[in-house]
Amino acid sequence: MKAIKDSVHGHVRLGDLAAELVDTPAFQRLRHIKQLSTVRLVYPSANHTRFEHSLGVYHLARGAIDGLGLDDDTAAHVRAAALLHDVGHGPYGHQTEGIIRRATGRDHDDIAWLLTDADREACRVLERNGLDPERVASLIAGEGGLGALVSGELDVDRMDYLVRDAHHTGVPYGTVDTGRLVNELRLAGNGASDSGSADPEDAALVLAEGNVPTAESLLVARSLMNAVVYRHHVSRVAGAMLERACERYLDRTDTDVTAFRRMADHDLLVALREEVPALGERIERRDLYKRAVWVGLADVPAGTVDAGHAEERAAEREIAEAVGIDREAVVVDVPSRPGLKESGSTVVVDGVPQRLEDASELVAGLRSAERRRWTLGVYCPAEHVDAVGEAARDVLGLRGVGART
Amino acid sequence: MKAIKDSVHGHVRLGDLAAELVDTPAFQRLRHIKQLSTVRLVYPSANHTRFEHSLGVYHLARGAIDGLGLDDDTAAHVRAAALLHDVGHGPYGHQTEGIIRRATGRDHDDIAWLLTDADREACRVLERNGLDPERVASLIAGEGGLGALVSGELDVDRMDYLVRDAHHTGVPYGTVDTGRLVNELRLAGNGASDSGSADPEDAALVLAEGNVPTAESLLVARSLMNAVVYRHHVSRVAGAMLERACERYLDRTDTDVTAFRRMADHDLLVALREEVPALGERIERRDLYKRAVWVGLADVPAGTVDAGHAEERAAEREIAEAVGIDREAVVVDVPSRPGLKESGSTVVVDGVPQRLEDASELVAGLRSAERRRWTLGVYCPAEHVDAVGEAARDVLGLRGVGART
Amino acid sequence: MKAIKDSVHGHVRLGDLAAELVDTPAFQRLRHIKQLSTVRLVYPSANHTRFEHSLGVYHLARGAIDGLGLDDDTAAHVRAAALLHDVGHGPYGHQTEGIIRRATGRDHDDIAWLLTDADREACRVLERNGLDPERVASLIAGEGGLGALVSGELDVDRMDYLVRDAHHTGVPYGTVDTGRLVNELRLAGNGASDSGSADPEDAALVLAEGNVPTAESLLVARSLMNAVVYRHHVSRVAGAMLERACERYLDRTDTDVTAFRRMADHDLLVALREEVPALGERIERRDLYKRAVWVGLADVPAGTVDAGHAEERAAEREIAEAVGIDREAVVVDVPSRPGLKESGSTVVVDGVPQRLEDASELVAGLRSAERRRWTLGVYCPAEHVDAVGEAARDVLGLRGVGART
Amino acid sequence: MKAIKDSVHGHVRLGDLAAELVDTPAFQRLRHIKQLSTVRLVYPSANHTRFEHSLGVYHLARGAIDGLGLDDDTAAHVRAAALLHDVGHGPYGHQTEGIIRRATGRDHDDIAWLLTDADREACRVLERNGLDPERVASLIAGEGGLGALVSGELDVDRMDYLVRDAHHTGVPYGTVDTGRLVNELRLAGNGASDSGSADPEDAALVLAEGNVPTAESLLVARSLMNAVVYRHHVSRVAGAMLERACERYLDRTDTDVTAFRRMADHDLLVALREEVPALGERIERRDLYKRAVWVGLADVPAGTVDAGHAEERAAEREIAEAVGIDREAVVVDVPSRPGLKESGSTVVVDGVPQRLEDASELVAGLRSAERRRWTLGVYCPAEHVDAVGEAARDVLGLRGVGART
Repeated sequence: MKAIKDSVHGHVRLGDLAAELVDTPAFQRLRHIKQLSTVRLVYPSANHTRFEHSLGVYHLARGAIDGLGLDDDTAAHVRAAALLHDVGHGPYGHQTEGIIRRATGRDHDDIAWLLTDADREACRVLERNGLDPERVASLIAGEGGLGALVSGELDVDRMDYLVRDAHHTGVPYGTVDTGRLVNELRLAGNGASDSGSADPEDAALVLAEGNVPTAESLLVARSLMNAVVYRHHVSRVAGAMLERACERYLDRTDTDVTAFRRMADHDLLVALREEVPALGERIERRDLYKRAVWVGLADVPAGTVDAGHAEERAAEREIAEAVGIDREAVVVDVPSRPGLKESGSTVVVDGVPQRLEDASELVAGLRSAERRRWTLGVYCPAEHVDAVGEAARDVLGLRGVGART
Repeated sequence: MKAIKDSVHGHVRLGDLAAELVDTPAFQRLRHIKQLSTVRLVYPSANHTRFEHSLGVYHLARGAIDGLGLDDDTAAHVRAAALLHDVGHGPYGHQTEGIIRRATGRDHDDIAWLLTDADREACRVLERNGLDPERVASLIAGEGGLGALVSGELDVDRMDYLVRDAHHTGVPYGTVDTGRLVNELRLAGNGASDSGSADPEDAALVLAEGNVPTAESLLVARSLMNAVVYRHHVSRVAGAMLERACERYLDRTDTDVTAFRRMADHDLLVALREEVPALGERIERRDLYKRAVWVGLADVPAGTVDAGHAEERAAEREIAEAVGIDREAVVVDVPSRPGLKESGSTVVVDGVPQRLEDASELVAGLRSAERRRWTLGVYCPAEHVDAVGEAARDVLGLRGVGART
Repeated sequence: MKAIKDSVHGHVRLGDLAAELVDTPAFQRLRHIKQLSTVRLVYPSANHTRFEHSLGVYHLARGAIDGLGLDDDTAAHVRAAALLHDVGHGPYGHQTEGIIRRATGRDHDDIAWLLTDADREACRVLERNGLDPERVASLIAGEGGLGALVSGELDVDRMDYLVRDAHHTGVPYGTVDTGRLVNELRLAGNGASDSGSADPEDAALVLAEGNVPTAESLLVARSLMNAVVYRHHVSRVAGAMLERACERYLDRTDTDVTAFRRMADHDLLVALREEVPALGERIERRDLYKRAVWVGLADVPAGTVDAGHAEERAAEREIAEAVGIDREAVVVDVPSRPGLKESGSTVVVDGVPQRLEDASELVAGLRSAERRRWTLGVYCPAEHVDAVGEAARDVLGLRGVGART
Repeated sequence: MKAIKDSVHGHVRLGDLAAELVDTPAFQRLRHIKQLSTVRLVYPSANHTRFEHSLGVYHLARGAIDGLGLDDDTAAHVRAAALLHDVGHGPYGHQTEGIIRRATGRDHDDIAWLLTDADREACRVLERNGLDPERVASLIAGEGGLGALVSGELDVDRMDYLVRDAHHTGVPYGTVDTGRLVNELRLAGNGASDSGSADPEDAALVLAEGNVPTAESLLVARSLMNAVVYRHHVSRVAGAMLERACERYLDRTDTDVTAFRRMADHDLLVALREEVPALGERIERRDLYKRAVWVGLADVPAGTVDAGHAEERAAEREIAEAVGIDREAVVVDVPSRPGLKESGSTVVVDGVPQRLEDASELVAGLRSAERRRWTLGVYCPAEHVDAVGEAARDVLGLRGVGART
C-alpha cells in the first residue's frame, strides 16, 4: 500500500484505486487550488491546497468506514467519493463558486457532469475498477446517510479542514478531536444499525451516546474559525475584489465558464493581472481596498441583506457614479444570512437520536454570535473611503453607518 | 538568565529572584502535587504537576507585564505572585481544598499565613530582594486589577492550565491562543491607561478591542474541558472517594490539618492505603466505586442541591444504614451550583469595556450547557449499586432516578 | 473496542484481551512508575509513566503486526507481550534494576517468574484467553524475530519512548518518524518472508529497502537524547543517590527484594525519607549532591572503568574515610562502557539485509560521540567537594582530575 | 507592535521598520515564492513560502540579538538583514539560482544591486529610517560575525527552515531546538565578548560551552532532511526538468534575465506551460520523467562529477542523438560534490572556541553519509528509460550502471 506523508495525519495509506485516482489530471490539478484562497493574505502560513485536504478527507473516511460495518462495494464507493469530493472546484475554490453557479447552475459538489462529460480519466478509472461514477457523484452531492459522511453536518470534509486550517494558520480554535469524532460515528434509524436489513445508504449518520460535547466542539470550532479566520475582513476584502476581477475577466475576454472552471490558482492570478490589471495587480501585491462601510445586521434594511447579485452590482455602479469614480473602484460585499449548518447534526441522547439544536442550549448562543458577527462591507481605494462611505449609506439605505479601517 | 525547558512553552527564562524562589522547599514541594489529581485515572498521560504549571504561569505573566507598562517594583511583585500562586495547595490540590477550608477557613489562594508564619524561606527570599510578602499575598488573593492577572476571569493561571491540560490529556479543546490573549491584555478604567496618573493596581484588566471571540474561546475551552476532562465521572468518583478517605484519615489519626496541608501526593497515597485501606487501596489500584445514582438538576430538589457538607455525610450514613452496609461504602457527591467564572471577564467593544456576558450571546448558551451537565452522583461498590440507588432515591428525595454504569 | 486517549498517539484502541490485562493489578501498578525516574528533576514536565508508555508500545506493535502478515494466534501473543513488557520493573524503573539483578539474578524483562509465580492475575487472564504465558514471557525476553519487535534493536519500545520522552521533556531530538518505522518493518531471512513456510518467530526483523536514513534517525535520536536527557548530570546525581539510598534501606529494614520490587515510586519515596533521611529528604527536595569529580574515559584507568559494584562501594568508603565524613556522603558513579545497541539493527540495502553499522558510516561517528560523552562522577555535599575530589583522585587513580559544578 | 500569526513560531511581533519593509513590493513578492520549490510534488503539504520563512528568520534574529548585547543601530541593521535576506531569490528559489548566476554572476544573497538599483522601495524605507542599505546588504552576504548570524554555519536562516520544513512536510527530522540554539549564541574572539572594546561585527559567532550536542543536532537534522526531503529523487527529477525548461524559455523568448529573476512562481508555471509545453505541462501535472540512471560516486569518473553546466548540456544532446529522441527528452543531473557547511560551525569547549569538526567525531560520519548519498541521475520519459540508460553509460563513462525506477 502506497503511503503519502501528510503534515496533519502523518502517513495516509492509499489503496490501489485511490493511488490510480490520485494520478489523474483532475486530481493533480488540486495541487494548484489553495484551500483557503485569500486567507493567506492575513495568515501567511495558510498555503495548503485541496490536494492534501482531499487526501485527509479520504483518510478520515477510511477510519469512519471501519466502524460503520459497510460491505466492500459500498465502502469502495464512499472512499472514492471522499477522495474526489473537491475536484469540481474552480480556481480559488469557494471564491469563484458564485460565478460558476450563476453561469452553469452547478455547485462544486455537483460533479456528475464532470465525471460523465469532460475530464473522463477519473471516470474511466472508476469504471475500470468496477465502480459506478453516478453513485460516487451522488455521494459527493450528500445524498443518503453515507452521502452525509462526505457532505453533511457531520462530514469528514469538515473534520479535516478544521484541523488542517488550524495547523496551517496557527490559530488553534479548529483543533477538534478527529480521532474521537471518527470513532463515534454510527448509522442509525430505519432499524438499519440494529437489524442490518435496512439499506445503510438510507440510514442517518449520527454520533453515538455521550457525544453532545463532541458535537458542540465541532460547532464551536466552526464558529470561532469563522470569526477569526474564514471571515476576517482582510480576506473578505481580497475575496470580493477577486470575484469582481473574475467577472470583468469573463466579460472582457472570450473565456467561457467551462474553461474558467478548469483554471488553477496560478492561471487565474496571471490572467487577472494581465486582463484586469486595476484589480489583479492589487491582489497580487496585497495592496487592498479599505473599508468604507462595515456594519452589522441591525443597521441594514432587510431588502439590502437579501439583495441578489444583480442588485449588488447595480448598487456598486450607483455609488461609483455618485462619487465620480470608476465602477471597479467600489465593491459591495453582502454575505448571505448567518447560519450554522452543523447545528443540524444528530447525536444520540438517552438512546434517542436528537438534532444537536434540540440537545444543546449552546446552539442558540452560537447562532446569535453568528448573527452578531454578520457584517456588510463596502470597499474602495483608501483615498475615496469618506466619499464612498457617504454615498453607500444613501444607496444601500444604511442606518448610522461609520467607516472602520 | 537561567532557562528551564517546559513541554508547553519551550524555554521558560527565570530572573534571579524567580530562580531563588524556585529553590525553596515550598516551591520544590509542588513537584509532588499533580495538576489534575484523579483525572489521570481517565487520561493516563495527565501526570503533570503544579511545579511546571507554576513556571508556565510565571512565563505568561512576564509576557503580559511587557504590554501593561508597569513600573519595575510592581512588575516584580506580579511575577513573584504568579510564580507562588499555588504554594498554598494541599495534597491533590483542589481535591482536599474543602477539607482544609472547613478546618481552617482558608483557601489555597490565601497564602498570607503561609508567607508570614511557617515556610518562612520563600518569605525571606522575597524580603531579601526588597519585596513585600503581604503585597504578593494580596495579588495571589486576586485583589485589584493586577491581582486579576494572577487570579481572576482573565488570569494567566487559567490560560496556562487550559493549554497544559490539553497537551497532557491529549484532549484538544483547551488549546486557547495564549500568545494572543497575553498580547491583548490591557489595564483600563479610572483613567489609568490614558493618563498614567491612576494606580495600575486599581485599574481593571480587560481585553483590547476586537477580542470578543478571543474571550469567548477561553469560555468555550473551559466549558468543553469541564464536560470531557475536569468533570469526567471516573475522575469524580475517584475524587469523592479520596475526599472521604482523607476525612477518615484525619478522624482516625492525630494528624492535624496543618501537617495534612503540607503533605505531598505520594505521602497521602501511602497514608490512605495504610490508615484507610478500604478506600486507599481501591484508589491506588483504580478499583473504583460504581455509580448508583447519576442525575441532573431537574431531578434533584433544591434543598439537596444546596446541601452542606454535614447534610451530605448524614445522607451517606442514612443510605448505608438503610442498605445495611458500612458507611464508607456510600459516597454522595453533590457538586456546587453550575457557573462559569470566565463570563465576568471584560472586553473592550467599540471603545467601551463591557462584561463578556453582555457582549456575547454565547455566554447564556454556555451557562445553560453547564446547568445541563450538572450531575449529582451516589457511588458504591458494584455489588450494592441497586440497593444503594433505591435507598438514595428516598433519602435525597430524587425524582425518577436511574443508575447509569 | 475500548479506546484510551493518549497524549502522543491520540486514541489507543484496546482489544478485549488487552482491556482485561490493563485492569490487572500488575498493570495498574505501572501508573505509579515514572518512565524517566529522576530526569524530572531536570525537565520538570517529564512525569509520564510506564502505564501510558506500555499502551503506546501496544499501539505501535499493532501497527507493525498489520504489515508482517502473522497468523492470529502469533499476533495475539505479540500484542500481549508488547503490553506487558514493563510489568517486571521495580520502583523508579531502571534506577533499581541493578539492585534487583544483584539480589535475584533477574532483569526487568525477565517476567517468567512473575507470570507463573506471584501476580497470577495477568497470567490467569492470558490462560483464560487461550494464550501461553511462557511464550509471552519469551517474546518479552526478546527471543526470535518477533521478540526483537518487543525487545531488540528495532523494537517498538524504543520507538515509543523516544517520541514520548521528547513530547514530555520538550526536547525535540527524540521525534523519530514512528509511522514510517512501523510501516517499513519486515521479517526476512530463512526464506520466511518469501515462501511463507518458515517460522516467522525465527525470521529476522529488518527495515525494508530505502531505509538507511530511517534507521540512522533512530540511532541519532537515541544518541542525542542520551547526551541531553537520559544522562544529564543532575539526573545522574539524583539517580546515584537514589540507588545508594535503596541499598541502605534494604540493609536497615527487613524488606526483602521481592517486596521491594513490587513497590511503586510513591512507596519508595516515603520509605526512603523515613528510613534513610540523610539521602531521602534530599532527593525529595531536590537538594542534591554536587560533582566533586567529573571526568572522561581518557582520565580513568581501565580497572576503574570496569569496576564492579563491590569495588565502587569500597571506593566510596575509602574516600569517605580519607575525608573523615559519613560514607553516605560520597557517591561514586561509574557508568557501564559506552555502546549503542541500535547500531546492530538490520536494514535491507540493494536487496540484502545488512547490519546498520556496515551500511552506515554514521555509526562509527555516533560510537565515538558516545565514548566522548562517557563520564565518571563522584558526588558529595557541596561543602566537601574539594576534599572529596582530592581523595577520589587518589583512590580511583584518576589523571588530571578537576571538579566541575 | 504589529503581530503576524505564524504556524511555526506563534505570534511574530514586527517593529515599525519591519512592518514598513513587509509592505514593500519586493517583500510581498515572497508570498509567491515557495520555500521548497518542487519538494511539494513528494510532500504535498510543503507549500510554505519564503514570505513566512523570512518573518521566522526575523523572529529568531530578534531572539538572538537579545543575548548578544548589540547597540541599537547594529541591532536594527541585523534585524533588517534577517527580514530581507531572501528578496534576491528568483522564481522557484534555489532551482533557478544557477541560471541567474551564470547570466549575471550574482547569487540570491547578493542583494546590493537590488537595493541600490531597481526595487528601490525597500531601499528607500531603510534610508528613511536611518539605516545604511549597503551595510544591510553586506550582512546578507554573510560578512563578519553578525553576517554569520544571517548567513553562516550557525545562521537563523537554517534554524528556521529546518523546523519549518519539518512542520510542513510532516517529516520530523528537522525539529531542532530553536529556543536553545538562539539562547546559546555568543560573539567570541578578538576579545570582543570580554572587553567590549572590539567591534562585534568582527567577532566570531559561536555556541556557548556545553553545546556540542546542540551543534551536532543541527548537522544531523540537515543531513537527514537532505536524505529524505531536500534531495528526494522525485523532487530532483522535477527540479532538473524545471531548470531545463527555464533555459529553453530564456532561449526561445526575449525575456531577459532581470525580468526572469523578478517573476514569481505562478508567472513561471504559466510561462513554461505556454512556451515550453513539452516540459511545462509535465511539471504542472506531475507527469515526470523516470530515472534511466541513478548511481553513486563510486561509479562515476571524477571528470563527470566535476563537469560544468556546458558539459552536462553537451552530454544530454549526445545521449539524445544516440537514442534518436528530442534533446528535451534527456536530463542529466550531476549534483555538486557532497559537503556539509554546518560542520564549520564553532562551539566553545572547555573555554576554547573549536570548529565542530574538531570537537565532534560525528562530523566525519555525517560527511561519509553525504558522500554515500550523492547520486548522479539521468532522467527521460518512461518509454526511453532502457535506451537512454545504455547511451548515458557510454557518454558519461559510468561503471556498472543500472536504472532504478
